[in-house]
Amino acid sequence: MELTAIQIAALQAKRAKAASLGLRSLSTEKKNQALLAVAGALAKKTDDILAANAIDMENLLEKRSDASKALQSRLILTKEKIKAIVEGVITVAGLPDPVGEVVKITERPNGLEIKKVRIPIGVIACVYESRPNVTVDIAALALKSGNACILRGGKESINSNTVLADIFREAVVSVGVDQEYLQFISFTDHAAVSALSKLDKYIDLIIPRGGEKLIDAVCDGATVPVLRHRKGITHIYAAASANLDMAIKIIHNAKTSNPSACNSLEHALIDAKVADKILPELLKKLKESGVEVRGDEKVQVIVPEVVLATNVDWLTEYLDYIISIKIVDGLGEAIAHINKYSTNLSDGIITEDESEAQKFVSAVDSAATYVNASTRFTDGSEFGLGAEIGINTSKIHGMGPMGLEELTVTRYIVLGNGQIR
Amino acid sequence: MELTAIQIAALQAKRAKAASLGLRSLSTEKKNQALLAVAGALAKKTDDILAANAIDMENLLEKRSDASKALQSRLILTKEKIKAIVEGVITVAGLPDPVGEVVKITERPNGLEIKKVRIPIGVIACVYESRPNVTVDIAALALKSGNACILRGGKESINSNTVLADIFREAVVSVGVDQEYLQFISFTDHAAVSALSKLDKYIDLIIPRGGEKLIDAVCDGATVPVLRHRKGITHIYAAASANLDMAIKIIHNAKTSNPSACNSLEHALIDAKVADKILPELLKKLKESGVEVRGDEKVQVIVPEVVLATNVDWLTEYLDYIISIKIVDGLGEAIAHINKYSTNLSDGIITEDESEAQKFVSAVDSAATYVNASTRFTDGSEFGLGAEIGINTSKIHGMGPMGLEELTVTRYIVLGNGQIR
Repeated sequence: MELTAIQIAALQAKRAKAASLGLRSLSTEKKNQALLAVAGALAKKTDDILAANAIDMENLLEKRSDASKALQSRLILTKEKIKAIVEGVITVAGLPDPVGEVVKITERPNGLEIKKVRIPIGVIACVYESRPNVTVDIAALALKSGNACILRGGKESINSNTVLADIFREAVVSVGVDQEYLQFISFTDHAAVSALSKLDKYIDLIIPRGGEKLIDAVCDGATVPVLRHRKGITHIYAAASANLDMAIKIIHNAKTSNPSACNSLEHALIDAKVADKILPELLKKLKESGVEVRGDEKVQVIVPEVVLATNVDWLTEYLDYIISIKIVDGLGEAIAHINKYSTNLSDGIITEDESEAQKFVSAVDSAATYVNASTRFTDGSEFGLGAEIGINTSKIHGMGPMGLEELTVTRYIVLGNGQIR
Repeated sequence: MELTAIQIAALQAKRAKAASLGLRSLSTEKKNQALLAVAGALAKKTDDILAANAIDMENLLEKRSDASKALQSRLILTKEKIKAIVEGVITVAGLPDPVGEVVKITERPNGLEIKKVRIPIGVIACVYESRPNVTVDIAALALKSGNACILRGGKESINSNTVLADIFREAVVSVGVDQEYLQFISFTDHAAVSALSKLDKYIDLIIPRGGEKLIDAVCDGATVPVLRHRKGITHIYAAASANLDMAIKIIHNAKTSNPSACNSLEHALIDAKVADKILPELLKKLKESGVEVRGDEKVQVIVPEVVLATNVDWLTEYLDYIISIKIVDGLGEAIAHINKYSTNLSDGIITEDESEAQKFVSAVDSAATYVNASTRFTDGSEFGLGAEIGINTSKIHGMGPMGLEELTVTRYIVLGNGQIR
């Protein structure tokens, strides 16, 4: 009798759970040794990875000859990309190990010593889309933080991911780490995804990374806790006291440096007091970069040729060379707009006024809230976390890019000498 | 047209969300002032609270003349209990405010300063059962941590809870805090509960405290993140190197001091090497306290009269004067049994051997893992948290009794001077 995708996913989850028991007590040294073995193996097998990736690229273009440049560029691996991936793994090996960290010690009047300490979460499932380097990011972060992981990548990258996962499993076992810590799900239909999020017996956390459909497939009826972000509707507010050149430079960069990234800018709010000074130069630069600019009525007064932005625009994550601009009357209106439309991923203010910056960051509670910098930095690697296993905008566990620390949970160890209650 | 319970719950959740925006920027001073006003009002209105509670008690005994002593003792309020409740509120006012705490600062090579800071979660819904003091614990912790809260208590305590919630709302408004921060749901059917856990537009976290049915009603189809514990199947392992008197004293206390509490002991594991020294005295003490003792075959060899414990016992949370005892061959078997049957709330070891204690706490990852103390201390108040909003055994956010810190979440504030990517 042949097993179904769902049955095999359950078996793999069970294997991950069993492996997690040994993984959580691995020494930092052993985990680093395993990561360096992985880095070496990835470098050595660059040709195998490229060959598998070439099949993925071929399959993509065969099935979808119209596949977007963006999709192709996410999927394709090159020697340079693999070199960066290898360096990423080495970086993770060099990061401090959060497991065992004593976060707080409390001495109680009855003499009990209560320690709040970090332990691995246990088994983490990740469901993601086309970029094969995500496979490596997650497998490396999970290993370093003592977690077993279940990886289910997109169908486009199935060949690349399979080779990458195999390299991890072979390399870790070569230094005596249980290869079952990494379970790669080779079924790419949504049935396996929905099944994973209901395996709370074996899986402690599931992280979907991708489009709305994928996230819905994970969340629907999930019994495993889910951490994720949905859309990235990102705002930058140029305040009246902004350094105007800086405002133009940051808004332009946040929009154009990679429009398909979730942390790219979608909506700029310009203070009415400086709108006529910022808009002409900003629009010129945006147009030079091929950006379609939409604006509210007040923007149209200053720059009549812009398309009118409607309420639909404020609700839209373009992920494209489009921006909507609104003129606002001061900080209050900017905050109100952001709190209404932001998806809490990444929002910022440009201002030279410290008390204004302070008010902004205390009123806007996005996972990453910026003062005088591009929102494009919302990323585990840019934050110094080595990589990220996802970005969390749920208001539990830890918002923002999830690195090693977010792959642990605190619990209590209570040391006594006979205390009873 | 009359609104349904579900529509009213949604309106109240919306009001809580609106109130949460103001609440999160309240100063510590203002929040403490509000808590002290509440404490004063609770003391002043003790008679009103007792009168409402008397109606609850009357209703209970009228409808369920067979209501257990345990239920009655959970529901009843006395002058002494109210005095303790008032002191609890004053304690919360005296605790440090976690909001705004900078957990970590990272300086990046590009000059970005990345701060990880604590903010309130936002809107927290709590669904709980008969004890009216839970209303006060949650309302006080939520206020101090800058969160709006939606309270839905049990039907038995509806009159007591209504008065307590009213006192909170009146007292906070008297010092200028928005009373809408506290929404009390007066519908006690399960429809309102199920509705709450789907209001993710307004509610950031839902915490059910109670029996399996209540938890299922919250979890089923929930779109709001849920943190909770289910049963408390609690173990204590008396190792070969245990101080035998201490082992007997702690096991006896953990079983008998309050069997209906989730942190009370259900199953004792006794090392084979010391079983004949511990069991006779332990069983004598347990029987004197009216505890029914069950045991495995090995226990029966030493004490033939005990009832045989079966696999059903190891899966059971008695919450009663019953205990099951198993004789195990060393630390490994004890850990394997606990990892198989524990619900990760509270487990402990009695040992004089430090390395053994270390192995135990690193292999058992219960929310509170004990060395040489009663498991009965798993409680926010006993942990020095003032109170608790619940106990979390999910392996995210922070396991164990949830106090002020667990009512916050970390997010990032990024300070730059024009950085682009």
